[in-house]
Amino acid sequence: AVKESLDNFLVSVQIDEEVAKLLQLKAQLGGEDGKHQFVLKTPKETLTGKYGEDSKLIYDLKDQGGELLSLRYDLTVPFARYLAMNKITNIKRYHIAKVYRRDNPAMTRGRYREFYQCDFDIAGQYDAMIPDAECLKIVHEILSELQLGEFCIKVNDRRILDGMFAVCGVPDEKFRTICSTVDKLDKMSWEDVKKEMVNEKGLSEEAADQIGEYVSMRGGMDLAERLLQDQKMCQNKQACAGLSDIKLLFSYLQLFQVTDKVVFDLSLARGLDYYTGVIYEAVLTQAGLPPLANDSQNGASSEESAGVGSVAGGGRYDGLVGMFDPKGRKVPCVGVSIGIERIFSIMEQKAEASAEKVRTTEVQVMVASAQKNLLEERLRLVTELWSAGIKAEVMYKKNPKLLSQLQHCEEGGVPLVAILGEQELKDGVVKLRVVSTREEVDISRADLIAEIKRRTSEA
Amino acid sequence: AVKESLDNFLVSVQIDEEVAKLLQLKAQLGGEDGKHQFVLKTPKETLTGKYGEDSKLIYDLKDQGGELLSLRYDLTVPFARYLAMNKITNIKRYHIAKVYRRDNPAMTRGRYREFYQCDFDIAGQYDAMIPDAECLKIVHEILSELQLGEFCIKVNDRRILDGMFAVCGVPDEKFRTICSTVDKLDKMSWEDVKKEMVNEKGLSEEAADQIGEYVSMRGGMDLAERLLQDQKMCQNKQACAGLSDIKLLFSYLQLFQVTDKVVFDLSLARGLDYYTGVIYEAVLTQAGLPPLANDSQNGASSEESAGVGSVAGGGRYDGLVGMFDPKGRKVPCVGVSIGIERIFSIMEQKAEASAEKVRTTEVQVMVASAQKNLLEERLRLVTELWSAGIKAEVMYKKNPKLLSQLQHCEEGGVPLVAILGEQELKDGVVKLRVVSTREEVDISRADLIAEIKRRTSEA
Repeated sequence: AVKESLDNFLVSVQIDEEVAKLLQLKAQLGGEDGKHQFVLKTPKETLTGKYGEDSKLIYDLKDQGGELLSLRYDLTVPFARYLAMNKITNIKRYHIAKVYRRDNPAMTRGRYREFYQCDFDIAGQYDAMIPDAECLKIVHEILSELQLGEFCIKVNDRRILDGMFAVCGVPDEKFRTICSTVDKLDKMSWEDVKKEMVNEKGLSEEAADQIGEYVSMRGGMDLAERLLQDQKMCQNKQACAGLSDIKLLFSYLQLFQVTDKVVFDLSLARGLDYYTGVIYEAVLTQAGLPPLANDSQNGASSEESAGVGSVAGGGRYDGLVGMFDPKGRKVPCVGVSIGIERIFSIMEQKAEASAEKVRTTEVQVMVASAQKNLLEERLRLVTELWSAGIKAEVMYKKNPKLLSQLQHCEEGGVPLVAILGEQELKDGVVKLRVVSTREEVDISRADLIAEIKRRTSEA
Repeated sequence: AVKESLDNFLVSVQIDEEVAKLLQLKAQLGGEDGKHQFVLKTPKETLTGKYGEDSKLIYDLKDQGGELLSLRYDLTVPFARYLAMNKITNIKRYHIAKVYRRDNPAMTRGRYREFYQCDFDIAGQYDAMIPDAECLKIVHEILSELQLGEFCIKVNDRRILDGMFAVCGVPDEKFRTICSTVDKLDKMSWEDVKKEMVNEKGLSEEAADQIGEYVSMRGGMDLAERLLQDQKMCQNKQACAGLSDIKLLFSYLQLFQVTDKVVFDLSLARGLDYYTGVIYEAVLTQAGLPPLANDSQNGASSEESAGVGSVAGGGRYDGLVGMFDPKGRKVPCVGVSIGIERIFSIMEQKAEASAEKVRTTEVQVMVASAQKNLLEERLRLVTELWSAGIKAEVMYKKNPKLLSQLQHCEEGGVPLVAILGEQELKDGVVKLRVVSTREEVDISRADLIAEIKRRTSEA
């Protein structure tokens, strides 16, 4: 709620920014190749025709200062626009920022229309599958380090899908729409998916059944090799190119030691139009996950990743930058989008479950007093601790009750209390109290800093 | 320029957000005490009458969905609004975010209409001057740690100013406007300030001259004590309250060991209306500072702090939260605003001057190869290093030239290169190259990680 209302306000004071900036931008961009720049400064057009059937999730904006505008739907398209606008031909960067979806918000389930995404992308003309493998390595590392439980990273290739559609007799113009139907396999049964293909999208029974066979396949490098021998598949250039790259990818993933979690899955078909090669999606497979949250918000769209545990997604998009370049110069890119809010909600639930308190402060020690009139002594000591680089605090009261000082620590999860009293001052010691165990020991002033550092480094 | 264009785009896609959010907010806020909430959701009104003569710097916004709107001018008023809206009675927080000024932008000098501020505030009913002293301690610590050169923190109190104006015979209704004239003393001579008081603001010569005597005074606790004895001052309740608090403040600052840099300066008169007590401003006093940059942007307004080296400002504002509370409940606050962009521009200039390269990557070691066909070996090694928590990278090429790998390190400031060649592989070693000295040593694979950690921790 706190976050909510802050956001709301920040937002409600920022409308003018956009108008002002647009005018400024207009001024800046007026000039020679105005056409190119016009495209760049009309994001609505920027976003058009990149999200396939998910375009309906894009926030449109009525004409503003004569410009069609939308909210960014992800961080990928803006990144590509940025590379083109600044003629950057290789870069590796991460970006954490807000994106917007015209989705039904469900605050209680942690699903918002405005939410954070965390993207990592590698742009540049490199040898096949090396950066792609690094992206998967990073997803594997993040999900392992965060200890979110069992997970699996599904991998596929847009060219394999297209090749598959071709050899199954799907008409070219139906590739994209059939693709987004296939993509629903993680939340719909094959029967329903087939129904949609045949009844809604007018695909032949036979074509649908052939697709059905392929999309049930899962495996690793072995599956890629098998499909390279597949009579139908091997006749399709695109499919073969994709399958050879999957093989190469897995050879790198072996060296990165992440093949345990990566599975080649022909049913993975992320809905976005801009992918040109490898696509992937990370899914938490452990039972007992929190209820559906941000399922459209892990860097994928609601179409792509209703999988309860879907927490990351991405792929290769070699054509996107070229769309923004006046001369159409291409910059190959591969990237991944982490469903950071989804992951936070899971971590919060785990923290609650484990009853471990999520600390709201980094304070390591509170300098407290047992009797009155010791404010100066407290300020003197906290200054010592601050100078030693220890995160310490005092209550801003002349004569706080010891109990209220201790309570403050219990509530805030402050692990240590350095208690000063007349006796301690006489003896040249400080009573160091461990909040969790309530154990208390007298430490000489000379040893205090070392002792605090020792105890806090343990923690 | 990079930052610029990114920002511009992000902005140009975000207009709709505000409209959408407003409508959402509208829906959420519709209800019981709508009046209160109405005030909260009309930021224009929120901002009105808090910045005195600086109000002209507030970005207004024409009617949007029936609401008057402005861009936030600082982080202080939104913070107060937030406390009131969420009924928070004590909190200590920092906040780094963008604010907006309808100022003449001067990109070349690093002055923008949109810029970052970094605020720290302590809200709550506490004993006098303890949180205030901590704010000054923090400013002192930041400026010392960042090694920006000599600095000084001017301190004054709004009540001392008002008392001074009263005893000097300034009519009540002229306090604020005379105050902002006094505030110009850091960029105007006293003669010109006096002229403005007398000619433009219709103050009597005599009153102006009396003010002139006071505002020339600088000192420490001693000055506060002297002024408490001052025949005129001591007759004014407000002044006395302010002076006693300055005394108390200095006693705490002594314990915090920061009095070396803090000066009680009666000419400090920050222009903002919302201050009710202590006010302060940090100024870099070293010569050879970069040309005027963000001089209106160190958390102060252009009125307040044209001082070339002004990098932080703040004070106590006990009335602001109450203005937003339907029942007028007050929450005393004190805070400081750091001119973070100003500070960055100074640090960048220092870096350039010292010719030290500002690193654009955290990579500690690049895994390179001396011959062809060693990609797999590179990937294997970089995986080892990653597992050991070392920041490492490889070039995404099958057979990169050694020279281009080394150049990449020189350009990016990557300190170490772990070079693999057939010979090294045979010998079970890695050639570790120090980029700066070009020194190369063979390290056995078993010792490599320890050696890299040793060398990078030194750096």
